[in-house]
Amino acid sequence: MSINIVQALKQVSTATITTFLFQKGLKNVWIRRASPLRPGQERQVGAAFTLRFVPAREDLATESIWSAPISTRAAVEDMPAGCIAVADTGGVTHAGSFGDILCARMKVIGVSGLVTDGAIRDRDAIEEIGFPVWSNGVSSSPSTSGLTFVDWQRPISCGGVAVFPGDYIVADGDGAVVVPPRYAEQIAASGPDEERLDLWVREQVLSGARLTDIYPPDEAVRERFRASATRNR
Amino acid sequence: MSINIVQALKQVSTATITTFLFQKGLKNVWIRRASPLRPGQERQVGAAFTLRFVPAREDLATESIWSAPISTRAAVEDMPAGCIAVADTGGVTHAGSFGDILCARMKVIGVSGLVTDGAIRDRDAIEEIGFPVWSNGVSSSPSTSGLTFVDWQRPISCGGVAVFPGDYIVADGDGAVVVPPRYAEQIAASGPDEERLDLWVREQVLSGARLTDIYPPDEAVRERFRASATRNR
Amino acid sequence: MSINIVQALKQVSTATITTFLFQKGLKNVWIRRASPLRPGQERQVGAAFTLRFVPAREDLATESIWSAPISTRAAVEDMPAGCIAVADTGGVTHAGSFGDILCARMKVIGVSGLVTDGAIRDRDAIEEIGFPVWSNGVSSSPSTSGLTFVDWQRPISCGGVAVFPGDYIVADGDGAVVVPPRYAEQIAASGPDEERLDLWVREQVLSGARLTDIYPPDEAVRERFRASATRNR
Amino acid sequence: MSINIVQALKQVSTATITTFLFQKGLKNVWIRRASPLRPGQERQVGAAFTLRFVPAREDLATESIWSAPISTRAAVEDMPAGCIAVADTGGVTHAGSFGDILCARMKVIGVSGLVTDGAIRDRDAIEEIGFPVWSNGVSSSPSTSGLTFVDWQRPISCGGVAVFPGDYIVADGDGAVVVPPRYAEQIAASGPDEERLDLWVREQVLSGARLTDIYPPDEAVRERFRASATRNR
Amino acid sequence: MSINIVQALKQVSTATITTFLFQKGLKNVWIRRASPLRPGQERQVGAAFTLRFVPAREDLATESIWSAPISTRAAVEDMPAGCIAVADTGGVTHAGSFGDILCARMKVIGVSGLVTDGAIRDRDAIEEIGFPVWSNGVSSSPSTSGLTFVDWQRPISCGGVAVFPGDYIVADGDGAVVVPPRYAEQIAASGPDEERLDLWVREQVLSGARLTDIYPPDEAVRERFRASATRNR
Amino acid sequence: MSINIVQALKQVSTATITTFLFQKGLKNVWIRRASPLRPGQERQVGAAFTLRFVPAREDLATESIWSAPISTRAAVEDMPAGCIAVADTGGVTHAGSFGDILCARMKVIGVSGLVTDGAIRDRDAIEEIGFPVWSNGVSSSPSTSGLTFVDWQRPISCGGVAVFPGDYIVADGDGAVVVPPRYAEQIAASGPDEERLDLWVREQVLSGARLTDIYPPDEAVRERFRASATRNR
Repeated sequence: MSINIVQALKQVSTATITTFLFQKGLKNVWIRRASPLRPGQERQVGAAFTLRFVPAREDLATESIWSAPISTRAAVEDMPAGCIAVADTGGVTHAGSFGDILCARMKVIGVSGLVTDGAIRDRDAIEEIGFPVWSNGVSSSPSTSGLTFVDWQRPISCGGVAVFPGDYIVADGDGAVVVPPRYAEQIAASGPDEERLDLWVREQVLSGARLTDIYPPDEAVRERFRASATRNR
Repeated sequence: MSINIVQALKQVSTATITTFLFQKGLKNVWIRRASPLRPGQERQVGAAFTLRFVPAREDLATESIWSAPISTRAAVEDMPAGCIAVADTGGVTHAGSFGDILCARMKVIGVSGLVTDGAIRDRDAIEEIGFPVWSNGVSSSPSTSGLTFVDWQRPISCGGVAVFPGDYIVADGDGAVVVPPRYAEQIAASGPDEERLDLWVREQVLSGARLTDIYPPDEAVRERFRASATRNR
Repeated sequence: MSINIVQALKQVSTATITTFLFQKGLKNVWIRRASPLRPGQERQVGAAFTLRFVPAREDLATESIWSAPISTRAAVEDMPAGCIAVADTGGVTHAGSFGDILCARMKVIGVSGLVTDGAIRDRDAIEEIGFPVWSNGVSSSPSTSGLTFVDWQRPISCGGVAVFPGDYIVADGDGAVVVPPRYAEQIAASGPDEERLDLWVREQVLSGARLTDIYPPDEAVRERFRASATRNR
Repeated sequence: MSINIVQALKQVSTATITTFLFQKGLKNVWIRRASPLRPGQERQVGAAFTLRFVPAREDLATESIWSAPISTRAAVEDMPAGCIAVADTGGVTHAGSFGDILCARMKVIGVSGLVTDGAIRDRDAIEEIGFPVWSNGVSSSPSTSGLTFVDWQRPISCGGVAVFPGDYIVADGDGAVVVPPRYAEQIAASGPDEERLDLWVREQVLSGARLTDIYPPDEAVRERFRASATRNR
Repeated sequence: MSINIVQALKQVSTATITTFLFQKGLKNVWIRRASPLRPGQERQVGAAFTLRFVPAREDLATESIWSAPISTRAAVEDMPAGCIAVADTGGVTHAGSFGDILCARMKVIGVSGLVTDGAIRDRDAIEEIGFPVWSNGVSSSPSTSGLTFVDWQRPISCGGVAVFPGDYIVADGDGAVVVPPRYAEQIAASGPDEERLDLWVREQVLSGARLTDIYPPDEAVRERFRASATRNR
Repeated sequence: MSINIVQALKQVSTATITTFLFQKGLKNVWIRRASPLRPGQERQVGAAFTLRFVPAREDLATESIWSAPISTRAAVEDMPAGCIAVADTGGVTHAGSFGDILCARMKVIGVSGLVTDGAIRDRDAIEEIGFPVWSNGVSSSPSTSGLTFVDWQRPISCGGVAVFPGDYIVADGDGAVVVPPRYAEQIAASGPDEERLDLWVREQVLSGARLTDIYPPDEAVRERFRASATRNR
């Protein structure tokens, strides 16, 4: 994971990223059912640190497993600063996969955010801590009442998308997307300019330009944008 | 579409409208799964301008179709001021059917709002622009990754409700409803008074009236309301 | 319903309660699909006052049934102060089971809140009144367009959980949970301390403690907490 | 419940019944998600004997409740010959609401069939016994693992339809429908003739008649049918 | 639509077709939720004749619309022999979109089959007539109770797939797939041979071949197959 | 995996097994959404051999991965005779996770069956081969169009149930259940007798016994059963 790529991706919206990846043939990169916990949450970027749960089974899902070597606590302690934790819950939303204490620790470690297709719990406390979460709602119930944690840093399914350890994750107001490493550098290179072009097109439209003249921007429009950008420096 | 009707309907809540239509035998007029993008969004009223998508098929859903004559851009340019765009996505929510630039253009044209049973993208930008949207969530993915636009101003299904071009649409905090033109004038005539009656009943209840004495208001209650309204002039 | 228990439970989060009940073998106590209407809504506690709807049938669901002896209005008038109304809608969310006038009356009576697995209507008015609601979204449509009210104070299903009249209900930002009376006293006794321990653990974590040293808290950690609590008095 | 009505309804398909009720303004009478257990199962008719379950709660759903006075066994013993048992499971399909032994007893008693929006268990044994069931699939799990039985002969919701004790139930290859008593006599009177007309129209169509000439049958077509029926006596 | 192509496609399974189309980049061609009405139903092939429904609205969905010029009856009379009717119901499965009489007429006309993402009614009669249907279950309720027919031979969505008039449809035990015309000739040319290769591979496997030696067949395996086919002539 | 245990479990229905496990506190052992492909399929028993898929991603899900070392073909070759393959598809049912050739190989190897919460393809061919499958329907589409195979013999989620390699799987007409090894021996010991008792109770009921006298069987009833069993020897 390159710091430069992360810095560049922070300036690129998930909408611009999915458009780029769609043009490369990748259509299934947006993680379904993972909404920002707090409206207006800032964009987060990092390498995926994957976690995997299976449904709870009564002969396994006891509180005693909280001291087992395979635990979300052990996984959290293993996370590097700057990563984004991505959790596969198999669609279980009647138990909170993460609560305030795990989130507090992730924040202290420097984890950039948590993305899960399951629920989280202790919502108010997590907002207070200020740790950015994208989840499928909330649930009071403890993780162990619905889920068994089984491994980390393996390929997972999250919200209908495959996530491999080391994929880049970008998450903002439109949700979270997966960026395969082979495309990250390209997006880091061209994305911020695309973002500026988009903003310029939007301004032209708000000033009265017709869509059919300007959108999507063809080469002539892009030339006008570049000229305008030069003038405004 | 009459301006007077639109002005009158702006004073009538969707709850009052559905109650009226229910009494006329129409029970399926509330568009399911279309929530206001922004809490507290002001009520919008307009004639339905319908748009229809089918799922994307890889041999059709390429970026090159963005310049095709049948495009959402062309449809938007065709919209009259004061209409409400209503989009049938067939329930596809893993692609954003509309983004910030189309919404910016609709705003400039004077379109009153957008109602869709699909997702939108560029949520933060759309909120910034201040264009009112009722949608089934958000998705980063481009429209073309999940949807093909096929026609406009034809009958559609939106959120489990039939919408015909020219139906009135009213949308507020409780969602969006369809008002067949034949009923719009009646609602415009009686709705604002019903709204005032409702407010008065609520105030009576907050002052201690028992439900069984006042709600739903019978003729005697309505008489008391009218007397009170006269006194307060 | 004991006032002391209610007062104590107000200090205990639903997350702490479900953890306690899970340890006693109760895993299905969190009511699914009932979200706070307003973010940041204060925690509410009360005895369950149950209401039950079945789907509307056209030969029954007419406005004339609003004056029938079995009505939500009659049920609301029957509610004691301090209870929490819990409604079983059988999963119907295309009609609003409760509106602003019923909520206004509940507020005047002193009902502590409403929990339903259905939708409510008149959202903006209910927020204005300030009556706390946990529901599965909103819908403009009148109750009678989708629901027939059949009885109250009988066992119900709400959000996939059995609720019996007299169960305690606690609802906060993570949703609503059912507390069987036999466990309420125990939770009232130990819950507030557990809450303080949780907060202390969170603070330790935010100050740099590793999860594996402190969470979940074992007896040694609990001893440190108690010592710290004594010092800070 | 009249024997004559039951005998007559046995000759009327659920499709003909729902068409009749639709013309009377009843659109929600077909029970969703209740399929015949065995293809080709014979049509069954009877008065609804309703049963109601709520989700299991661990403090209640123990095997000891099998000897409680409120039990499916007690309810079955209370069923009159000729009724149809209709069960409201609140949509729980991960536990079998009825098994082979309860079905065996219902068969001996003379119950005409079982309709449930939940699952049943012991599928092969029930087919062997030859008791007709309409259910939402099967599940091995015991009823008590997912459901608590709470009362019988009260109004219920089954498959999105309200069922009241004493409603007529007709079930065939297209599923199960509710016939409010006030309409049963009319359908018993006209239904068998409608059924013969339908068959005759179908034969005309199979012999080459165009739909636009014969369907739906207008008065002239009905006259031709009656003439043909007279000739063939 | 070419007769030769239809004849050739009859020898190609939908599994072989989707594999071919996947290799061309088309992944979304299998129509979801449309199962064969009768197990063992023979494979059907034809050009798509599309039909489109929107939800019923009480002010439109009256029996009087059965005589309207836009009706399923008129559409059926417009169908050419050899086509496959494909219906978009917008996911409404609580009303039967087609019944026995329409199916009887389609059979007489020579329509090859019906594919719908909605339900059908008169299941037993349709089986008796012997008209092949792929649907999302059955429902007793009349079409008009849930659906309004709006147009035909326009692009539709069926089971999450875009279908355009003139696309080829192939339906067998694994469901129904869409074949864009540009690919139909290629599949007609190579498909039957692929089918024979598949059968041969299966036989080799049943005779003990290891998957890793034979599947998927590489060029050497294909050579062995061709040699074997020559020997067996 | 003990042959004796497998032989004994073959005589025990999944309904009897889930009742036993429920009494031990295990309520979530029935695999949801996995139905027998063929009605009347014989009961199968074996140790779970687990397989795991994640959603397809276009940069990975190419046909070239069919020759990768991590492939379903390699996993199948690794399966021991007598196991039951259990596949976690993450709920993807729009692609067939297994087809006729893999099933043919499993049959030759001596695998006892396949259980998956996804779809299978080549349904007719699999029935012809006679390999027993429990799946969530069928789909023509190739596995690679929706799924990427990632590992085998790791803990998985299948149909909402945790399955660990080495758990026993029993599958019959009511679906498939997981038996943790620690309980398998007990069930093997007592299950066949319970099965005979059940059959005897059913016969008593069919001969007129009242449920309240005989079901569920108490110690006196069990004594009568044992006496009867002795007599009939």
